[in-house]
Amino acid sequence: MRVRYAETDQMGVAYHAHYLVWCEMARTEHMRQLGVRYRDLEEGRGLRLAVVEAHVRYRAAARYDDLLSIRCWLRDVASRQVTFGYAIDRPQDGRSIAVVQTSLVALNSSHVPTTLPEVVLQRMQTAADPVRMSFKCR
Amino acid sequence: MRVRYAETDQMGVAYHAHYLVWCEMARTEHMRQLGVRYRDLEEGRGLRLAVVEAHVRYRAAARYDDLLSIRCWLRDVASRQVTFGYAIDRPQDGRSIAVVQTSLVALNSSHVPTTLPEVVLQRMQTAADPVRMSFKCR
Amino acid sequence: MRVRYAETDQMGVAYHAHYLVWCEMARTEHMRQLGVRYRDLEEGRGLRLAVVEAHVRYRAAARYDDLLSIRCWLRDVASRQVTFGYAIDRPQDGRSIAVVQTSLVALNSSHVPTTLPEVVLQRMQTAADPVRMSFKCR
Amino acid sequence: MRVRYAETDQMGVAYHAHYLVWCEMARTEHMRQLGVRYRDLEEGRGLRLAVVEAHVRYRAAARYDDLLSIRCWLRDVASRQVTFGYAIDRPQDGRSIAVVQTSLVALNSSHVPTTLPEVVLQRMQTAADPVRMSFKCR
Repeated sequence: MRVRYAETDQMGVAYHAHYLVWCEMARTEHMRQLGVRYRDLEEGRGLRLAVVEAHVRYRAAARYDDLLSIRCWLRDVASRQVTFGYAIDRPQDGRSIAVVQTSLVALNSSHVPTTLPEVVLQRMQTAADPVRMSFKCR
Repeated sequence: MRVRYAETDQMGVAYHAHYLVWCEMARTEHMRQLGVRYRDLEEGRGLRLAVVEAHVRYRAAARYDDLLSIRCWLRDVASRQVTFGYAIDRPQDGRSIAVVQTSLVALNSSHVPTTLPEVVLQRMQTAADPVRMSFKCR
Repeated sequence: MRVRYAETDQMGVAYHAHYLVWCEMARTEHMRQLGVRYRDLEEGRGLRLAVVEAHVRYRAAARYDDLLSIRCWLRDVASRQVTFGYAIDRPQDGRSIAVVQTSLVALNSSHVPTTLPEVVLQRMQTAADPVRMSFKCR
Repeated sequence: MRVRYAETDQMGVAYHAHYLVWCEMARTEHMRQLGVRYRDLEEGRGLRLAVVEAHVRYRAAARYDDLLSIRCWLRDVASRQVTFGYAIDRPQDGRSIAVVQTSLVALNSSHVPTTLPEVVLQRMQTAADPVRMSFKCR
């Protein structure tokens, strides 16, 4: 993805809150590759995945018009909560821009915690990669 | 309201799309003063006001930490569509930052055009000020 | 481009201010195709293009995960001010989502109006398309 | 502060990335109360405070038009890095919405790490409150 002008601030770099938006995009695409379209979860099953924790380590500034790559993986999958890891890099110079971790809980349409559908759970558990522990929360 | 750091861009000024957000805030407060809480319209009546047209003239740059004042008024009120005018100013130096106009249509919970509730319509019509035509589209 | 979850609002559609951000992305890419990288204009020449007017007509709601296409063209090119037109469409169902027009002025690094560099002006004038007048301001 | 419509997403709650923006606002006001206007640091001294780490625990959903209160305090102050804690609450029902922690490093105008000015450092150290350890990173 390319950093938008709207995402810069007057420090001349991407404003730090946008990193969480980029991770949301990576998460959506990662789930799509697992055969789980998040839009269908919401529209078809009334399921929501709500972020309950986020941790970002900013390593280098991203700048306007930079092309960034975001890797996303499942770090932990339980029936009611999943944790994703993310690595944001700038391929042009090989710099690590940030490492991020977010945890999400499954909610039903009344915003009450619920379990993930079995088929979603299985696909996520198969994809979960506990070995890639490159990102640690302190 | 005060310009947030998040709202600046690398030009060192407030990014132009945020002006529409500020107008949304002013519109919400203006309706509250008329006794119409927009949140109640949505939650209680399933009514939505969707923006169908927006026009912004940027006159001077707003900067980080600037205190801005936004005046909002009703320019035109019909049973299915209302038009608001806005003047964004910086009291500190008396500069006009922007003039804005947005038109909104009433939609029901199925996103189909509908008419405004009679009580809302009356309050808006009473408040409408066709004389304050300081802002013109071209 | 794909509509981000972050860009939706509780009406279940893309919030109207983001359309201007999408147009910024289209403008950047359009200029890149003309051989003008906006980032280089800012970094190399201290030139900025600041939005002085924006007009958006919202025709249909864009939704989360929608794939949108944005066409961008030059409507008017003068030495100090350029006007772009934009058509945002959803290819999947052929719906027109919005038509937009923005005018930008050239500023130097002190934010004083200036003229566009000759080479930029020529490329833009060659690309300008006064015939595509599909979008009109009222 | 009041939750803006622009800050909601289609889940009907405030989108999680905006919490970091709200903390930025609280941080700016906290520093202003200490006699340190962040805008002056940037404009007068060429100093920037860049976020290097952020940790958010989301406890309850914030909704459109909610009035929120944000308490901000200094948790740790060193010559090159400061850590702020934040508690976002909704006074109306006494709910804790989120607890947040961000660490920022001082950069000079070339984006190289530097030390905080002595007067700023002293004011921050006097205000630092290591006892309010209600928020812990895991």
